[in-house]
Amino acid sequence: MEKYLQTYQDVRRKIIAFNYMDFLFSWDQETEAPSASHEFRSKQFQVIAEERYKLSSDPAFMEAVEKLYENLNELDDELKVEIKNEYKDLRWVKKIPKDEFIDFQVLTQNGSNIWQVAKKNNDFASFQPTLEKIVEYLRKFVKYLETDTLKGYDVLLDMYEEGMGMKEYDEFFNTLREELVPFVLEVTKDKPAKFSRKLTHSVFPREQQREFSHYLMDVFHYDKTKGLLKESAHPFTSGNASVDTRITTHFHEDHLVSSIFSTIHEMGHAIYEMQNDPKYDDTFLHGGTSMGIHESQSRMYENMLGRAKEFWDIHYAKLVELFPKQLKDVSVEEFVRYINTAKRSLIRIEADELTYALHIMVRYELEKLLISGKLKVKDLPKKWKQLMGQYVGIRPKNDTEGVLQDIHWSGGSMGYFPTYALGSAYAAQIYHAMNQDFNVLEAIKNNQIDQINAWTKEHIHKYARTKTPKELMLIATKEPFSPMYYVQYLKEKFSQK
Amino acid sequence: MEKYLQTYQDVRRKIIAFNYMDFLFSWDQETEAPSASHEFRSKQFQVIAEERYKLSSDPAFMEAVEKLYENLNELDDELKVEIKNEYKDLRWVKKIPKDEFIDFQVLTQNGSNIWQVAKKNNDFASFQPTLEKIVEYLRKFVKYLETDTLKGYDVLLDMYEEGMGMKEYDEFFNTLREELVPFVLEVTKDKPAKFSRKLTHSVFPREQQREFSHYLMDVFHYDKTKGLLKESAHPFTSGNASVDTRITTHFHEDHLVSSIFSTIHEMGHAIYEMQNDPKYDDTFLHGGTSMGIHESQSRMYENMLGRAKEFWDIHYAKLVELFPKQLKDVSVEEFVRYINTAKRSLIRIEADELTYALHIMVRYELEKLLISGKLKVKDLPKKWKQLMGQYVGIRPKNDTEGVLQDIHWSGGSMGYFPTYALGSAYAAQIYHAMNQDFNVLEAIKNNQIDQINAWTKEHIHKYARTKTPKELMLIATKEPFSPMYYVQYLKEKFSQK
Repeated sequence: MEKYLQTYQDVRRKIIAFNYMDFLFSWDQETEAPSASHEFRSKQFQVIAEERYKLSSDPAFMEAVEKLYENLNELDDELKVEIKNEYKDLRWVKKIPKDEFIDFQVLTQNGSNIWQVAKKNNDFASFQPTLEKIVEYLRKFVKYLETDTLKGYDVLLDMYEEGMGMKEYDEFFNTLREELVPFVLEVTKDKPAKFSRKLTHSVFPREQQREFSHYLMDVFHYDKTKGLLKESAHPFTSGNASVDTRITTHFHEDHLVSSIFSTIHEMGHAIYEMQNDPKYDDTFLHGGTSMGIHESQSRMYENMLGRAKEFWDIHYAKLVELFPKQLKDVSVEEFVRYINTAKRSLIRIEADELTYALHIMVRYELEKLLISGKLKVKDLPKKWKQLMGQYVGIRPKNDTEGVLQDIHWSGGSMGYFPTYALGSAYAAQIYHAMNQDFNVLEAIKNNQIDQINAWTKEHIHKYARTKTPKELMLIATKEPFSPMYYVQYLKEKFSQK
Repeated sequence: MEKYLQTYQDVRRKIIAFNYMDFLFSWDQETEAPSASHEFRSKQFQVIAEERYKLSSDPAFMEAVEKLYENLNELDDELKVEIKNEYKDLRWVKKIPKDEFIDFQVLTQNGSNIWQVAKKNNDFASFQPTLEKIVEYLRKFVKYLETDTLKGYDVLLDMYEEGMGMKEYDEFFNTLREELVPFVLEVTKDKPAKFSRKLTHSVFPREQQREFSHYLMDVFHYDKTKGLLKESAHPFTSGNASVDTRITTHFHEDHLVSSIFSTIHEMGHAIYEMQNDPKYDDTFLHGGTSMGIHESQSRMYENMLGRAKEFWDIHYAKLVELFPKQLKDVSVEEFVRYINTAKRSLIRIEADELTYALHIMVRYELEKLLISGKLKVKDLPKKWKQLMGQYVGIRPKNDTEGVLQDIHWSGGSMGYFPTYALGSAYAAQIYHAMNQDFNVLEAIKNNQIDQINAWTKEHIHKYARTKTPKELMLIATKEPFSPMYYVQYLKEKFSQK
């Protein structure tokens, strides 16, 4: 055992370093790498990826993981969790034939390019053969990886959110279908409200937007000694240690609130990882425990905190100070209504808080049908339009605004989308639990977001990956996950008109 | 042979990738890494350094280099040069006992910290034991590495500038001693001229300084698709491909010209590597051929181009536009005099173009004495003061401003300093040669620095590391190196008063 532990720790130390280099490389790539260097860089990255793969597929390392797994009871609690996770990940290397795995990687690497062109040209037919192959591989992999408890699509769902399979998600989405869909269709049936042209047609210079993002970093107590803010085409959070968790945002001069809510959203992700207990930095337990829990933090910071009237009551003055001409005569009330409008829309990433989960529900239904074999790829566009009409009350006129809008499937990701909706639902339940301990809006009004951070740290963040999402929800909210908090939250918020 | 070539190329491919990661890591470290992440990062860097060392000390790789070296005639010309260089580098691994090499590395890693404290406290005695050990090791290594033609200090000199030993440097510095020292002492004997307080006592906001640096990047045709400008404590150029060569500068609000000449100096380094033939990017032949040639480019761009009256005749207006209040009533003539003042000073990195080489001469003499054993470390401070008085005409009152001012020795670098002076001398000869082909000041006046870049590319840059400094000077100037161009250049420039 000592020997296996030693091997495990030696290789783990190296993998963590390679992961860090991987992070640095992508961070540089997305934020500043010179454009002419891409070809040269991708050759260097290829080498590092090969070395990284050698480490995790090293037979001595795999043997160590297996032996430690067979003797789990001899390990301390935290190492137990870590070894369980590693053993689970080993399945991909062990159960899937190497050739198929590599073919799939090549397929999905090219897939994004093919998808991009298809989306641009509104040409689903040119993407269809690729997507057919991807679905075919995923169906095969699912067979290889099935267990007594995980069947079919469950295998993929469980990869992104442990403990969530079709049974659990069906329950969740059924609740939304029954409780939320009729409510949303009712609330959004009228034409959306109009707002001052100053909000929708002004130019908001990027320098002032940047300054406001830095202001927000202070308001949210984002620790600038452990991270930084830069720009990238698509905002993201990146890093792999509590002491190094960086964020990006984007500045669109014709769309002020886009950078504001991107920055807050990414801070939600980042504060989660920054508040992980630092002792996990040198282990595989650092990070968020699941995609759903991660998204719960970004959504809670963005929507429950960042879109609250109480938040803008004290911070709107700063915004007006930066944009005095653009926001002249726009009251804080109008601004808050503006950032909380619900309407039927086609594009997921532009969807508002109310309708967002229904966009996800469309994707969940479709993935389930595809993996089960009940839906053919060629019939996807039609089915997409039908479900959009049913759940969101609006049908895309073309595939660019429909089935081709998201990158995920082209990269081989199925089972990931549902965690976005789940994250919002987790957020509502966590927010409710926090309010049992103290008045959150009161804290916001008093500019004490550090109090909120202290609560999320104590009840969620510090645990890093040592708890499963289910365990964490129990710890944080003292009850199992229930979608009713989400439904209640949305109904209450969007009934106040 | 085929087998050895294959091994060589395989390992080379990996080393280049690790070198690139090394570059990215340092770049991040110097320009933006969050301050609290240093300890975590250094652990990750340690792993990557270990893996990097494994590659170059891999017995199969070393064998391949040796076999290829034994069969040099079978290789094409460029690979010949590369293998010669690699074979030379192998000496360090092969001739120096591993234990001693590692001890030296630990010693010099800690050396910089000890030096830093000693410098701060003006306490040479606390640094003396460390420096004694460093000199002792260097004297030992020199013995291990001596050849028929390289003896003692030659071994170290040759590491930084192939073909330059004590014989060559003695000739060079003797010329400076005879021709330059009396001239400099004469020119600088009066109190330095006074300039408008607007130049010396204004505040120059960093944002405008940054804008001017970006303006300069355009003026010099620095290719922004292959690099970028950021800030760091000490300006540097970094990158390891023609398509990725980045620079930094610093902005001191009380010292406008510091950022200007740092930016131009680093662009000189960067344009050299950017204009390397890109085919060397995937080999060990990319880069500058020596420290001296590298410095010749940075010095030529900074001093001959950037400090010329003709340069400011057309670019001073932009500077005044950015700093209208600060430069009000300061004529371009006064500004040009200001940036070309010579005076006796104590600190090398603040020294002007005229006196700079004499600061280096002091260090050359001292290193030669230390490595030969004729000077003891304990007697260094006294000897330093004496030589400074003799060559620069000014004696430091304390060691902080004297023998403790530079970091180099604490890190184990001896033999490096002389290349700084040599670079300036190379620059004068190259500048003279270029003027035989076209009127350089005319090109500057017409804002055609691209014409200058085209010349340096054709005569120097494109060769990367395929030519030795000696070969390159012959190619670029059609004659062997001669310090007289440097002496003439300085005498002419600093006699015009």
